[in-house]
Amino acid sequence: MAESGGLKVKQTCAAGLSRFISFASEYDTPKIVHVKSKKVGLVNRFVQLTVIAYIIGYVIVYKKGYQEFDDVESATTAKLKGVIYTNLTNISDSLNDIINHRIFDVADYVIPPQETDAFFVMTNMVFTPNQTQSICPEDPSMANVNCTVDSDCPKGAPVINGNGVRTGTCNVETKTCNIYAWCPVEKDVLPLPNDSILKDSKRFTVLIKNQIEFIKFGVKRRNVIDIINDKNYLRNCTYSSTSEIDRFCPIFELGTIAKYAKVDYDEISIKGGVIAINIRWDCNLDYSEKQCRPEYSFRRLDNKDVNIAKGLNFRFANYYTDNNRNSRDLVKAYGIRFLIKVTGRAGKFNIVPLFLNIGSGIGLLGIATILCDFLMVHCLRKGYYYYDRKYFIVEDVDKEFSESYQEQVTSSQLQPQNEEEHVRSRVGEYNRFRD
Amino acid sequence: MAESGGLKVKQTCAAGLSRFISFASEYDTPKIVHVKSKKVGLVNRFVQLTVIAYIIGYVIVYKKGYQEFDDVESATTAKLKGVIYTNLTNISDSLNDIINHRIFDVADYVIPPQETDAFFVMTNMVFTPNQTQSICPEDPSMANVNCTVDSDCPKGAPVINGNGVRTGTCNVETKTCNIYAWCPVEKDVLPLPNDSILKDSKRFTVLIKNQIEFIKFGVKRRNVIDIINDKNYLRNCTYSSTSEIDRFCPIFELGTIAKYAKVDYDEISIKGGVIAINIRWDCNLDYSEKQCRPEYSFRRLDNKDVNIAKGLNFRFANYYTDNNRNSRDLVKAYGIRFLIKVTGRAGKFNIVPLFLNIGSGIGLLGIATILCDFLMVHCLRKGYYYYDRKYFIVEDVDKEFSESYQEQVTSSQLQPQNEEEHVRSRVGEYNRFRD
Amino acid sequence: MAESGGLKVKQTCAAGLSRFISFASEYDTPKIVHVKSKKVGLVNRFVQLTVIAYIIGYVIVYKKGYQEFDDVESATTAKLKGVIYTNLTNISDSLNDIINHRIFDVADYVIPPQETDAFFVMTNMVFTPNQTQSICPEDPSMANVNCTVDSDCPKGAPVINGNGVRTGTCNVETKTCNIYAWCPVEKDVLPLPNDSILKDSKRFTVLIKNQIEFIKFGVKRRNVIDIINDKNYLRNCTYSSTSEIDRFCPIFELGTIAKYAKVDYDEISIKGGVIAINIRWDCNLDYSEKQCRPEYSFRRLDNKDVNIAKGLNFRFANYYTDNNRNSRDLVKAYGIRFLIKVTGRAGKFNIVPLFLNIGSGIGLLGIATILCDFLMVHCLRKGYYYYDRKYFIVEDVDKEFSESYQEQVTSSQLQPQNEEEHVRSRVGEYNRFRD
Repeated sequence: MAESGGLKVKQTCAAGLSRFISFASEYDTPKIVHVKSKKVGLVNRFVQLTVIAYIIGYVIVYKKGYQEFDDVESATTAKLKGVIYTNLTNISDSLNDIINHRIFDVADYVIPPQETDAFFVMTNMVFTPNQTQSICPEDPSMANVNCTVDSDCPKGAPVINGNGVRTGTCNVETKTCNIYAWCPVEKDVLPLPNDSILKDSKRFTVLIKNQIEFIKFGVKRRNVIDIINDKNYLRNCTYSSTSEIDRFCPIFELGTIAKYAKVDYDEISIKGGVIAINIRWDCNLDYSEKQCRPEYSFRRLDNKDVNIAKGLNFRFANYYTDNNRNSRDLVKAYGIRFLIKVTGRAGKFNIVPLFLNIGSGIGLLGIATILCDFLMVHCLRKGYYYYDRKYFIVEDVDKEFSESYQEQVTSSQLQPQNEEEHVRSRVGEYNRFRD
Repeated sequence: MAESGGLKVKQTCAAGLSRFISFASEYDTPKIVHVKSKKVGLVNRFVQLTVIAYIIGYVIVYKKGYQEFDDVESATTAKLKGVIYTNLTNISDSLNDIINHRIFDVADYVIPPQETDAFFVMTNMVFTPNQTQSICPEDPSMANVNCTVDSDCPKGAPVINGNGVRTGTCNVETKTCNIYAWCPVEKDVLPLPNDSILKDSKRFTVLIKNQIEFIKFGVKRRNVIDIINDKNYLRNCTYSSTSEIDRFCPIFELGTIAKYAKVDYDEISIKGGVIAINIRWDCNLDYSEKQCRPEYSFRRLDNKDVNIAKGLNFRFANYYTDNNRNSRDLVKAYGIRFLIKVTGRAGKFNIVPLFLNIGSGIGLLGIATILCDFLMVHCLRKGYYYYDRKYFIVEDVDKEFSESYQEQVTSSQLQPQNEEEHVRSRVGEYNRFRD
Repeated sequence: MAESGGLKVKQTCAAGLSRFISFASEYDTPKIVHVKSKKVGLVNRFVQLTVIAYIIGYVIVYKKGYQEFDDVESATTAKLKGVIYTNLTNISDSLNDIINHRIFDVADYVIPPQETDAFFVMTNMVFTPNQTQSICPEDPSMANVNCTVDSDCPKGAPVINGNGVRTGTCNVETKTCNIYAWCPVEKDVLPLPNDSILKDSKRFTVLIKNQIEFIKFGVKRRNVIDIINDKNYLRNCTYSSTSEIDRFCPIFELGTIAKYAKVDYDEISIKGGVIAINIRWDCNLDYSEKQCRPEYSFRRLDNKDVNIAKGLNFRFANYYTDNNRNSRDLVKAYGIRFLIKVTGRAGKFNIVPLFLNIGSGIGLLGIATILCDFLMVHCLRKGYYYYDRKYFIVEDVDKEFSESYQEQVTSSQLQPQNEEEHVRSRVGEYNRFRD
């Protein structure tokens, strides 16, 4: 028993092993019809060439198909520098006395003081100081009614687009209704007709610090880099796209930014606008990390020809209590909003994408075959000669299979005596196939 | 010598040329076994049909497989309009006198005055004016201790969740420890029990300006578009998803936004919340650019059923010096935060992706063959008949290769006299292969 | 007539039908040469195994090739808690009297009070109270000139890096030019030599609420989840990466965040910095949604070794009118900026990607064939024996096609009498092909 059992095991083992070996030493490969035909051959080679050129030239070399990629992770901070003294003696408007002779420094013109990937520089303003909650006539430019008697000013609900709620009385001088509001109401007129108060802000500088990381590759870079071995360089440089060195300087003059963005600073500073500062990190980590440096570009984002709410402005107020009166200074700030957009990706050699691209390339080569088969069979005068050699017809056997198998083989493998007949059948087959 | 050299060159040239020609005029195509079998044929056609339908119908037509795409680059600005007059006579709380009768305008309820792709509208508040750094009793609701004697209030380290540091004395009236803090401390109670001060803010309007660009295609669009040739249209319209024209109006009423976001404005305005304004740009640049228009959708992002820190609120203060006393007005602002999310992509016809999709489609067709081969050989009763025609067995030759090559050819090419034998071997081969 | 017409139709129908049937019951499959060779077979099986392992192991299992994915849509809000009492008796500087003994609460140290996906905590400051627009000497540390007489101070244009514009006079005490500016000018010196005023802010806590959505799957999740059934748990917990429960607590101690980011809080609090709070949602929606939970990680983003503008600071001012004098308190705020970055994606089973991955896998199997064909034909000693069986040479027929078709068939199908000749031609063919 045991013996025979042992024997069985041995046998199964042996069987399994031999089967495995024969399995491992097999190999299936399609039988190829090697056609020699100038016409088809040329087409074939041409298509193959195109595909190979596409794969190698475009996918692998141009699109770096041999690399795996990672997108950039970034953090930015912006710090402005600059002071302006406004000397607007030409302005009589008493309201603006306060800003006629005034120093504007960072704390004054950067609002809010800090943002994520953005900063705002006030370039123009409508200043309305010492407002208190009280009663005063509506701003004529706002009022949609020219009142003469109180009955023109129905007391009640707030005027959504106005500055306050009507008290029900009419102010005969201004010909506008009296309202309960922050008084005096803002006169929405720019202090200078076709100019901005702080257009000299073009001389301000901003230091942009940008830390990036390609997490997949564990590579950290920053845009504050010592191009030259001069400790003081970074303190005093300013960005210039033309200079080999200064195009890596992280300090930008606002005027320069506008220039590169093809914006007239004097014009944009009147009504405000939005300018994007793009920082592009395209890094090929197959080379030295040191090569991984930012590229700056600038462009205006808002549309200067828009017909409503042109430019960029917003209102904010400083609140305080003076002699127990709750007051505020209202500021309508016009200015330029700078958006810092950091993009980029790093590539590093990796076998997997290369493998995949080659694989898919091989797949594409199939197109050549399909095309040429079609050509060969349908377009060549002797198509059915090739068809005959490419296709090997196997009839359905479900019916006449009763006949001995061997005959089947002979009849279809080595054509028997009556060749013409066979051929005829084939040609018919071909014609059916053709149309 | 020279002659013979010249001759050599000529010969090599001739040889190279002829070789190139013969190379260029070659073409390899797999030999195809053309089986006629209803069962397999049907499966084959069905799978092929499925794959083709998938490629053409889904990949190319539905997923626009013939286009290359670019994602949107965007910049937004939001500008609010609206005034509210609060008339809370029902409130006795002296602290709130200041806000009982008060006008709230943009500068009052938009905090901070400007953000990137977002804006906050205050809808409710706890106002604590005229705080100074001094000593006062802790807010009972905050104090975790009910003191009776000073010893209950150990002087020292700040109470992280309190308003200040204990002075070491106990205030007998409030039964809370005295603290050094911004006094008087905030009474964290909403002015109205189940209502918000500024719920009328639902009538405010916001103008959202959105500039987008598809850089790859150099296409710039903005959401402020003149649908109709009426200069004043954009000034007076308000968004409505139902109207053919107004659904492109960039001015939104906050109440409408809430409605579309399925939010009860009165409810959200009490404790605050977060609402997303999605601007979707799906552009098919194969058509006119004019077709490239935004689609707006709205939904609430925060969870109203959260059990801690419900809604949205934050504290800020206005600092000032009054009669040489450093003071501040503390505001706990509840409100709605609107996040503007711009998404979208543009597609334009491009030959490369089309090419690739077709290529991969052809690859997928291979599945039909694999499946059917399996069927044909393993499932059909006469599998080995087809197997015999599909597979052409080539024995390993490393051993008996000593025999003359020609015999090899004959024996395997044109089957010799002893056919049965050959067949038998084949059938065995097949059986081995089958299991 | 009509009859014959009806007949025609019938016939066409019949014809069409029969053609369709024969078309539907056809099936093309490549003829396979089944080679038995240990050498090639092994290589073949090995390559096939590699590809299959890659597809199944890497693409489908590891990379979840059977799922379709959606990226996360998120909204966050942060709410800070904590109070600090500064007791800097060791400081004599009169300017800072105001901050020597002072309570700092949320409204004081969070600037701006609210941001999108970020918050800033002031940890150190230079405080300059009661500035007014007037004339005073420039800060010596700023002045690039040591003046002795007025002529050293040319009146005029603002000094971009200074605090104001020169009046033209020299202040003999400070040896700096008098300037028109916000006076007194800021003395840019930190109150404590190597320490920060608010370093105790490490004990502050922040509650981060994060709402996410996987729109494609309509799944909403939030990070404020009740891990345990204790109503009060979420009110009192603090995050800890080690605890099984507390690692889902949404309340973070700033000191803990710094610790996990490998940052010395005392050091970063002096000059400020940027720390990222990453919230990662990796969800496999094939399991229960409850499994879909956030993972927190922290790291410092700014570079502490940068040689200019180290750390993070910015200036802001509080404006007010005191006794009709426009004044401001200037604050140079140093602090830590926390950026909340939400990433993640959800995967759910879908047949399409699975289908595609398998398809492309089959395509890759082609590599095995290509490689082995090359091996077999070019590397094996008896290459041309296999070559002969794999390739079936079809001569161009454009010339001798005049000859009867049948002969063509016979001549190339069943090799005629003169076998050697035929073989010789083939061998030649092979050699040409080989090199």
